[in-house]
This record gives sequence, C-alpha cells and structure tokens, in this order.
Amino acid sequence: MAEVEIPKTHKAAVYDNPGSISTKVEMLETPEPGPGEVLINLTHSGVCHSDMGVMMNNWAGLPFPTQPGQVGGHEGVGKIVKMGPGTENAAVKVGDRVGIKWISAICDSCAACLSGHDGVCFNQKISGYYTPGTFQQYVLGPASYVTPIPEGLDSAAAAPMLCAGVTTYSALRKSNAESGQWVVILGAGGGLGHLAVQFSSRAMAHRVIGVDAASKKELVLSCGAEHFIPLEGTESIPEATKALTGGLGAHAVLVLTANNAAYASSLDMLRFGGRVVCVGVPEGEPVPIKSALPQFMIAKALSIVGVAVGDRKEAIECLDFAARGVVKTHFRVEKMDRLTDVFQEMFDGKLKGRVVLDLS
Amino acid sequence: MAEVEIPKTHKAAVYDNPGSISTKVEMLETPEPGPGEVLINLTHSGVCHSDMGVMMNNWAGLPFPTQPGQVGGHEGVGKIVKMGPGTENAAVKVGDRVGIKWISAICDSCAACLSGHDGVCFNQKISGYYTPGTFQQYVLGPASYVTPIPEGLDSAAAAPMLCAGVTTYSALRKSNAESGQWVVILGAGGGLGHLAVQFSSRAMAHRVIGVDAASKKELVLSCGAEHFIPLEGTESIPEATKALTGGLGAHAVLVLTANNAAYASSLDMLRFGGRVVCVGVPEGEPVPIKSALPQFMIAKALSIVGVAVGDRKEAIECLDFAARGVVKTHFRVEKMDRLTDVFQEMFDGKLKGRVVLDLS
Amino acid sequence: MAEVEIPKTHKAAVYDNPGSISTKVEMLETPEPGPGEVLINLTHSGVCHSDMGVMMNNWAGLPFPTQPGQVGGHEGVGKIVKMGPGTENAAVKVGDRVGIKWISAICDSCAACLSGHDGVCFNQKISGYYTPGTFQQYVLGPASYVTPIPEGLDSAAAAPMLCAGVTTYSALRKSNAESGQWVVILGAGGGLGHLAVQFSSRAMAHRVIGVDAASKKELVLSCGAEHFIPLEGTESIPEATKALTGGLGAHAVLVLTANNAAYASSLDMLRFGGRVVCVGVPEGEPVPIKSALPQFMIAKALSIVGVAVGDRKEAIECLDFAARGVVKTHFRVEKMDRLTDVFQEMFDGKLKGRVVLDLS
Amino acid sequence: MAEVEIPKTHKAAVYDNPGSISTKVEMLETPEPGPGEVLINLTHSGVCHSDMGVMMNNWAGLPFPTQPGQVGGHEGVGKIVKMGPGTENAAVKVGDRVGIKWISAICDSCAACLSGHDGVCFNQKISGYYTPGTFQQYVLGPASYVTPIPEGLDSAAAAPMLCAGVTTYSALRKSNAESGQWVVILGAGGGLGHLAVQFSSRAMAHRVIGVDAASKKELVLSCGAEHFIPLEGTESIPEATKALTGGLGAHAVLVLTANNAAYASSLDMLRFGGRVVCVGVPEGEPVPIKSALPQFMIAKALSIVGVAVGDRKEAIECLDFAARGVVKTHFRVEKMDRLTDVFQEMFDGKLKGRVVLDLS
Repeated sequence: MAEVEIPKTHKAAVYDNPGSISTKVEMLETPEPGPGEVLINLTHSGVCHSDMGVMMNNWAGLPFPTQPGQVGGHEGVGKIVKMGPGTENAAVKVGDRVGIKWISAICDSCAACLSGHDGVCFNQKISGYYTPGTFQQYVLGPASYVTPIPEGLDSAAAAPMLCAGVTTYSALRKSNAESGQWVVILGAGGGLGHLAVQFSSRAMAHRVIGVDAASKKELVLSCGAEHFIPLEGTESIPEATKALTGGLGAHAVLVLTANNAAYASSLDMLRFGGRVVCVGVPEGEPVPIKSALPQFMIAKALSIVGVAVGDRKEAIECLDFAARGVVKTHFRVEKMDRLTDVFQEMFDGKLKGRVVLDLS
Repeated sequence: MAEVEIPKTHKAAVYDNPGSISTKVEMLETPEPGPGEVLINLTHSGVCHSDMGVMMNNWAGLPFPTQPGQVGGHEGVGKIVKMGPGTENAAVKVGDRVGIKWISAICDSCAACLSGHDGVCFNQKISGYYTPGTFQQYVLGPASYVTPIPEGLDSAAAAPMLCAGVTTYSALRKSNAESGQWVVILGAGGGLGHLAVQFSSRAMAHRVIGVDAASKKELVLSCGAEHFIPLEGTESIPEATKALTGGLGAHAVLVLTANNAAYASSLDMLRFGGRVVCVGVPEGEPVPIKSALPQFMIAKALSIVGVAVGDRKEAIECLDFAARGVVKTHFRVEKMDRLTDVFQEMFDGKLKGRVVLDLS
Repeated sequence: MAEVEIPKTHKAAVYDNPGSISTKVEMLETPEPGPGEVLINLTHSGVCHSDMGVMMNNWAGLPFPTQPGQVGGHEGVGKIVKMGPGTENAAVKVGDRVGIKWISAICDSCAACLSGHDGVCFNQKISGYYTPGTFQQYVLGPASYVTPIPEGLDSAAAAPMLCAGVTTYSALRKSNAESGQWVVILGAGGGLGHLAVQFSSRAMAHRVIGVDAASKKELVLSCGAEHFIPLEGTESIPEATKALTGGLGAHAVLVLTANNAAYASSLDMLRFGGRVVCVGVPEGEPVPIKSALPQFMIAKALSIVGVAVGDRKEAIECLDFAARGVVKTHFRVEKMDRLTDVFQEMFDGKLKGRVVLDLS
Repeated sequence: MAEVEIPKTHKAAVYDNPGSISTKVEMLETPEPGPGEVLINLTHSGVCHSDMGVMMNNWAGLPFPTQPGQVGGHEGVGKIVKMGPGTENAAVKVGDRVGIKWISAICDSCAACLSGHDGVCFNQKISGYYTPGTFQQYVLGPASYVTPIPEGLDSAAAAPMLCAGVTTYSALRKSNAESGQWVVILGAGGGLGHLAVQFSSRAMAHRVIGVDAASKKELVLSCGAEHFIPLEGTESIPEATKALTGGLGAHAVLVLTANNAAYASSLDMLRFGGRVVCVGVPEGEPVPIKSALPQFMIAKALSIVGVAVGDRKEAIECLDFAARGVVKTHFRVEKMDRLTDVFQEMFDGKLKGRVVLDLS
C-alpha cells in the first residue's frame, strides 16, 4: 500500500486534573513502535463509564491513583501505519484496521494466560490507565494482541464492541445457558445491557427477560427481549421472573448493574442448577451477595461466577456478530474536544446510549 | 435362587420422641413391594449427622417436623428378597445386594430429573424422613433406583459410601479441578472429609491440602493429603494455602464443615478462576458467604457452587472405587439397639469415624 | 376430568407381509396398562423412512426380521386415557397429550442409561419393531418415558418432531458447534434436513450451509440457511464450502444422507478442530468413511462422532422450540388407510416433505 | 546472575545427506536473539522417531524435502543465556532452564491459535525441520513460547517429556476418559506408550489395559497398567478387552502405533459412547480406518478424534507431573557424536527406551 506519512506530534485528550471532571486536548509526541509492536492511527474511541472511574479516581478496582497527563480511553479503532521490529510474521500488517480494548497487552506467559484466562493476566496493561489510551490519534499496541476489525463494520460502530460488547458477550458465554433457555438481564437498558440483550437473544438464541427502569421498556424489547420487567411497581422481581418461566425461574441471571440490591435478589430468580454471572462492579465498601447462602445454594445446586472482561477470541467473535448486523450499538458521535462535556453528561446521569469520539 | 422366607414383622429403630436424642426398637409389619418396587432385607446401615438433624428436628434443610414413629437412616445395604409387579425387565433381581441412599426415590419426570439433576428432584423421597429409612431389617425401594453393590465390597464398608462417599465424590467432580491441580478440603478429618481426601488424591489424582484440628493430622495425611494445615496456631489459612501452592492459591476449595467462618475465608484460598464448592450446611440463621463480593469474584474470575447429594451414576462410580480398594471408610460396627448411645456420642462430639449398625 | 370410554378393540395398520410394501388395517384388542404404564389414545402418527426399512426388512440396523402383524410407527401423539398401577406420582396424568418416539421405553438401569446415553439403552424397546407402534388408535407407553406435548403445538405438527426433529436436534447439540459458527448440512432439503437447517440456524444461531439437489434450494434457504450448494454442477463441495467460510472450512458437518460418497468427502469440508456428525445410515454392505485417515485427522485435529437418536430431555427441548414456532415441519395429513400408498410414494422417491397419519 | 560468555561458534549435528541415515557434527555460528527471542545454551536433546522421519524424508506429514545442513531435534533443554529486544516483560529470564518442543514457535494470531489449537497453528515453526533444531549447543526460541523446566527435574529426564510426554498427555486429556474409566493403550511398551501408561494410570487415575509385544509385559505393568494383552497369541484384542471390562469394552482407546491394523480394530474395543484417539501416524499410502463405519458409529455413539501435539499449557502440566516423580522416562544418555549410530539402532528396531543426547 501507499506510504503513509506519520506526523511527529498528534492530538490527545489527557486527564489534566485526575479526581475531577476535566480533560484537555494536548499535542503529544508520536511514539515509535518497539519490538513486537504496531503504531495505530486511531479514528474513533468509545467513552465508557470505566473511563470516568479512572479519571475521577473513584473506582474500587484500581490500585493506584491516576496521574495527571494520563491519556484515557479503551475502545479505540484505527489503521496500522507502522510495524515494529520482529513483527514480520504477525497476522496483521500496515493498512489493517484494528482495535484496542480495556486490556491492551498481556504477557502470554503467566499462569493465568497459559490457562486461558487472559482477562486476569498478572502482567496485563490497561489502556487508559498507566498505559496511554485511545483518546488520541496515535497509539501503540502489540502486533499479536490488537483486535482485527472485520470488513464491513463501521469503525465508529466497532469501538463500543471492544469493551461493552466483549464484556457482555463473554459473560453470556460463561452463564452456561444453552440456546432456548431463560436468561434474566438486570440493567437491560444500559450501555452494557442493550448489547447483552441482543447478544443473548440474537447471537445465542436465549429467551431473554430484561429488567430495568420502565422508561427503557421499548429499547429492551426492540433489542430482542421476550419480556420486560420494570423496576417501578414490581413488588418482587424474583416472583415476576418465576411467573414468566413456568414457575421455575431462569437458567441464568446477568447482573450488569453496579447495585448491591440487584445482586441480593439475583439468586432468587434462578431455577435449580441456575447460575448468577457477576459483571457490574458496585461502588463503595464491598458488600457480600446477600443471597449467597450455603444452605440455599446447596438445596438448589446454584452457582455464582465472576466475569471480568472477555479475551481475544471473544473479542473477535463479538465483532463478527456486529459485522454481520446481528448486534448493533446505539451511539452518537462527538468530536474529541467535547470529551469533558460528555463526561459531565455521564456524571449527571443524562447520557443516553454510548458516545463515540471522532478523533480526526 | 432358593426361596427366601420373609417374616411378617421385623425389627426397626424408630424416633419415638423427635426433638430429643431417643430411639426405640419396635417390631413393624413387613411391607409388600408395590409396582416397580423391590423389598430389601437390610443387613447394615450407616449412621450420619443428617440422621441426628432429622431426629432432633433442628436441621434447617427440612420443611416439616419429624413425626414420632419415623424409621430413620439413609445408608442401608442388604439383599433383594422380593420383586414387585412390573419389574420383570429391571436390572436387579432377587438375591442382588443393593443400597438405599439419602434420596431413595425420584420421579424421573420433573424438570430437574430430566436435566440430570436428580439430586434436586421435585418429587424426591428422603430415606428416613417421611419415608421409612434404613434403621430396620426390611425396606422398600424402586427397582430402577436402588444402587447395586459391587462384588467384593463388604456390606458394612459399603453403607457409608452411600451418603458420605457419594456426596464428597459428587462435590469433587463438580469442583472442576483436573488431575494434578490443588484442592483444599476444609474439614478433612471428619466423616465426609476423610473420604473426600481419599477420593480427591487417589481417585482423581488431585493434590490435596487438608485443613482440620491438629489431632486429625495423621488421619488426613494417611488418606493421601500432600499437606495438612492445622486450625490451631495457623494465623491465616488462605496465606498458608498460598504458601503451599506457589503463591497462587488452590484451584478448588471444598467446604465440608457446617461453619460460616470456614465459608467466609474459603474464596481467599483460591487462585484466579478457582471455585468454592459448598457441601456443609451451617446450622441456625443462614449467613451470606462473607467473601462472596462481586468486586472480588469479578477481579479473579472466581465461582461458587452448591452441591447437594450425588446422583445414581455417581453412587455407582463411588462404590466401584471402594470395591477396588482405592477408597476406604474408617468405621466401627454397633448393634441396632445401641443407636441411641451412638447418637449421644455424636451429639457430644466424641464420635471418631463412622458408625455402621449391624441390623441382623 | 370427565371419564373417557375406552373401546375394547381399535383400528391398527399392521405389516401383513413384511418384506414387501403392504399394510392392512385391522381391529386389535385394546390393552390394559400394566404397572408403570399409561394407555394413550393416539390421534396422529408420522411416517418415517425407518418405518419403511422395518416393513421391508432391509435396514442394516435391525437384528431380526419383522414379524407379520407388527404394528409399525414411531412418531405418535395422543391423549392419555388410563394410568396403570404404580403411576400415582408420575409427572403425567389422564388427559395429558403425550408422544411416543423411536425408543419407546428404556430400562433406566443399564450402564448406558446411567451414563446418560439412553439412546443406546441395552434393553430399549423400539416402537413399531417388536413393540406395537403408533399406526394405531391405542398404544401403551411408560408413564416416566412418554414425551409431554406442550400446549399450543398442534398434534399433527408435533408428530414428526418426535423422530426427525429430535434426531437432528440431538445431532446438532453433539456437533459442538457454538452459535455463530459454520455448520454444513448434507441432505439439507430432506425430511431430516429441512428441520436440521431450522434448528441449526434459528434454535442455535449457527451459520448454515445447506447441500442438496438444486430443486431444494428455495426450501433450504427459506428454512434459514445462509448459503446453498447444489449437488448438480458443483465440482467440489469441500472447495465450495471453503470458499464460503473464509478459506478455512466449516466447524461441523452433519451427514443426514444415507450416502457413502457424502461421508467420503465430509471431513474435507472441515477446518482444524472440526467435527463430522454421522446420522444417515447407508444401506447395503458397510463402507469405511474414506476420509477417516489417521494422518489427516491428526494433522487437523478432526473428529467424527456417531449420533443415534435423541434422549428424553432433547425431545422435550425440541418440542419446546416447535411450540414457540421457531421450527416448523413441512407435512401433509393422510388417513390411516392410505398408509400403503404413502409407503409406495416414499419407495418411488416421490414423497415431498413428511406425511402424518390422521388416526381418528 | 553472573555474565555468561557466549562463544561465536558452537557444535551442531546436521543432516548432511537427507534421505539416508547420516549426521555430521559441524561448527555453526551462534545466532543473536532477535526481537522477542531468547538464546538458549542447550545441554540435552531427546532423539525421537519423528527426527528419523525428517532425516529420511519419508514421513507423510511433511510437505517439503529436508535440506542438507538441517539441524534436527525437537526435545531440547538448556539455560537461557541472552534475551533479545522487547523481552523485558517476559516470564523467563537469563539463567532460567527452558525447553524447545516439536512446535517451537507459533504466531499466536491465526484462527487456530486464537481458538486454543496452538498445535495446528497455521504459521507454526517445527524444531528440526526448516527451523534449526535441538541437536546443537545453542538455539533460539520465542521468549513467550519456550517451556519453563521446573526445579528438581533433571534436564536429561525433562527432554523426552517435551515431545513423547506432551503428546501422550494431550491425547489422554482429549480422550475424555474420566478417572476410574478404562483406557486401552495400543503400543503401550514403546517410547510414547510407556509414558502414556504412566500418565493414564498415575496422573489421571484411569484403569489401563496395555497392548504390545509380549516382551514388553513387565515394563507395561511396572508403568501402572492394570492388565496387559500380548499381541502374540491373542486371537482378538477387542474380545480380550471386553473380557477385562465387564463385557462392555473400554471408554477410550489410544492408538500410539503407526499401524493401520491397530486402527482397524480400535473401534471394536470401545463401549457405547467410547472414543478412539489417533496419535500414531502410519507410513505409506494413507488407509481409511476400517472400522469407521457410519452404521456402527451411530449404533454405539462412538467417536474418533485426531490429536497432533500438545499445547504450551499441557507441556507445563506434563513437566509438573514429571518433576513430582509421578511419571518417569526410561532413557539412556549418549554423546552428540553418537547420533548417527543411535538413528541406525532406531532404524533397525533395536532401540529400547528413549535416547537423550548429552550436548556438552
């Protein structure tokens, strides 16, 4: 392909004052790809709640405070413009569209990686947290770990798949629910939820019951849910679930909300042998799942499983469903310099659907 | 085979005063096998902690109070002496040695049975609780659900396998631990525990860490554990576990004790992707598992699963290991009329190993 | 419910001259249900190619010649009219609609049953072969093994699900193909095939490539196949498959035809790690699968698996999909006395879709 | 650690005349590790039948003729002496003992790698075939793909584990046999076989039946087989197998011999639901597995699976069992310049056990 000119500097949105809602567009030096790395010219990046957690320094999952100057973002899509040394046999090449996700690099050597848990790699790098993220025009990534974007999938639409998409897809796979079985999705109308409902009903042929605020009903049903249970006016969601599932309860429950009360009632929605999948990370002091009672779990042979983020293979599968049009993200596009406003909107709880930054 | 004479009445030990430690040997009418049933002349029955729970009416898992006159027991072994109508094609016949276990009959038709969860059959009968149990000389059982006892396995030794054996065997299978992986057994020196250690180390080739009171050390190591952690003097069992497993923690933890504190620390003993298996049923008000925190389970991709009792197939597999001498129960034999004393000993916490009643 | 009058005799179509295409409607004595049995007043029965094999005595799978007077049929649907002794706790009751399938009874005790392979029960009864079948108005079945027919599913439409439906559903489950993966169906337009295409694409979210005679193209695509490969004019079906699957080949191939040539090329359609599922039973002298070469299977990590018939659980799941309208059989209804003509049509290869007998 | 001096040239045994039994020790230039690579100072290398196939140019699995000057060998063990650029975060470091196996490098990016089939990586490098192998004192390997050798395992003993060990370990895992189930091993007394018997019986708690020439009986039984069937004087190995397994046959059969006749009878040794695992690669014109008959596989629900070589995770697990002394290789040590003689001995069928070259 034609030679691409790589600028010496490029635009990036940095957290200039971590702990507050504040980002600033700066010019950064464009880096050279090291051994095994590729340089990507990003065109789009999704904006995720976890980015806000990193910027605000208030997310329980992160061990160290975010530093001023951190480039955030972990749902980036763009084209490879340069290959580093030792990438001759890589599966990707200059000109390929690829994505960067939450875990942007793994060691591929630790006990977790070797046993197929690359989502809990002991040496993982997190995009947008102590590793320059995707709110910028040029970013580095490992040739063997960037995610190829399939032809026919718009870059803006691909971006949110790299976090919200993969996470819910992976959680559904780990629910052990077979096609034709009942899956309850708590938080069905949110950024994760509206994708989970589509993956569950359309990509895995589950029968989906969505639970969320009444205002989300139309969205959830349009995403493929067979039933919707509104939070408002429902005395008992477990009872409502049982009524919809022949009295037995669901085969699996996905908890996508960051809500201890949602976790508390989740096990009561299950039939014998059912499984709760934990995805949403409650803020504040950790609280045990109230219904995780040995007596009850034994009597009904229930299980609970925690799912962090999807792995490479799941990312590729998830993008394949998106490219085929089986699953669609609801999003709007904003310019990079609107990032602070987007975070403010998110903070105020006014954001509807996902925002994708146009980085050009 | 030669005709067997069946007496009109037979000896049985009944709970004459449920709620207290009291049993009484009475003569009961010997029943006729109905359609699909067999009549078994029992020679041995194990005595299990759950029997005491039923007798004392203090076990959380049971919905109704035990009635006076109940024949307890659920680890019975004997010979079939009569086949009921409709059993012509059964796999068992008069003269076969068979066993009765906790779940003595299933409907084989409910959603649980059909999905392979016969341990949570909606219409299950529980031996020794609202169904005459195995503390008697003659008992009925379904031709298709009694457990064949393999040749070469002593009847007294077979009895405890039908509850303690099957339960731990099933729990280990559901731990998902592969051979060569680390399994921690909490309560390793007890009635369930000493069998679990043997099944885990010898029948499944796991690497076992046993945890129990220091006095159990020798027993636990002789059962095949690679390491023993005494409860006394160990500041942190999770830390001790990590030290023995290369810093990572175990692949699975079996909680065999009825102890909320054991559950509380169980998840901390796991490596990424590990699993806690709940078997022991704590008494009193149910308490959530303290370490069942969504944040923590998500970050390490942990799971928790409840396991009730094993199914038919597991019972047969478990007896096969016992018949081959891979796994051995530690037990002593007592006469049927000593049952009250045995329960008293159990209540006082003085019982070592399992007691098997000689019913002849 | 209201008492149902049961006639002493009833109409049945028997094979009066096994080895030739000949059936005769006779009046037979209506039997009494024995222990564990139910009496069913059948209203519909599908007619399957296997019935013709039994009638003609030319099907390799059957050990003994069919006897004159045999009532054929193994896809029957009707209402329970009487319960035998010992069925008090059964999941079905008088008035329930239930079905009879190829395997009409199992022992539930042999090594195969206990390990979840009830399709290869050592003591199985085959409906319509040494066990009176479903080409009659009244038939017996085991209370615990008849298949409940879900509400809202027409009895005529339910009948073919009990053999063609369950068999293909089970084969697809055993293909190990995940949702989103490629499945090639050889014989996609036949009685089994048109259901397999629907189950695969709609009930399991696979991507389906149907292979059959060009005349079946429209049917196969309307059933949900993403691509169709006509037998006529396609030089190499493996090459055509690879071209449609990004060069790699399919994840699974279902061989539904009774054709050794189809088997011969089936492995060549697979990608690394792929699986061929054998369903169609070739007639005549058995021929080894030509591409079952150790060298080749090792190099690409391929597997081959044989699937007989589905089990109880799969029958129920399959009917559930049918009741929800996800999968639909193409069939026409004929009166019982037209059975010989139907077999003649089948023999002449003129039959399109399935025929269901109206037994009233 | 202390600086290690790396010589400019080193000793290597090359195939100087591919197609004949001939090797020659030469001095080769010691290479520099490229990006992502490590340089290993090898001390030991096993000699495998596949090496002979490569040298002799007569092994069906290889697409191109071997070139003169090729350094063979694919079971190498040594110490890392230098790290290439971009390996700062690797799990291994200078001074670590590591191994090189048949597949010495993968792309970690192709569809096969991503789906966990790294043994069929589309871009794999094969040690000792178009990639310099382990019959030399210095070799390169990828930092992320060399196999760490656990402490306490002798380097000479570790070498054969890297091919014979991993291959049989992986095949046994893919046999789906559970602990306590019957596994028949065809070729139980050979280089692969004697390890397979140990892994099966000791590391996975299977019940093993070894089949081989009568002279191997003692070796096979000492490796943990429960029974031995001699090839000489046994009329039917399938019948002998059934007699030893309660009439049903085995759960799995591993074919380790390169013998079409062994494959032909392998399926007849299985019970319903059983599985044949193909490992041995027959020489000459490929021959279909004679018992791979659709009729038969369907009737008994049998399966056949091809297994190439193990993956990274399996290599590590396998070495862990060896380090714990659960599994031991029978081998003798020879000097590098004896390689031609060793191959001649192998060619003449006189080799007993494995040979490991001392490369110092």
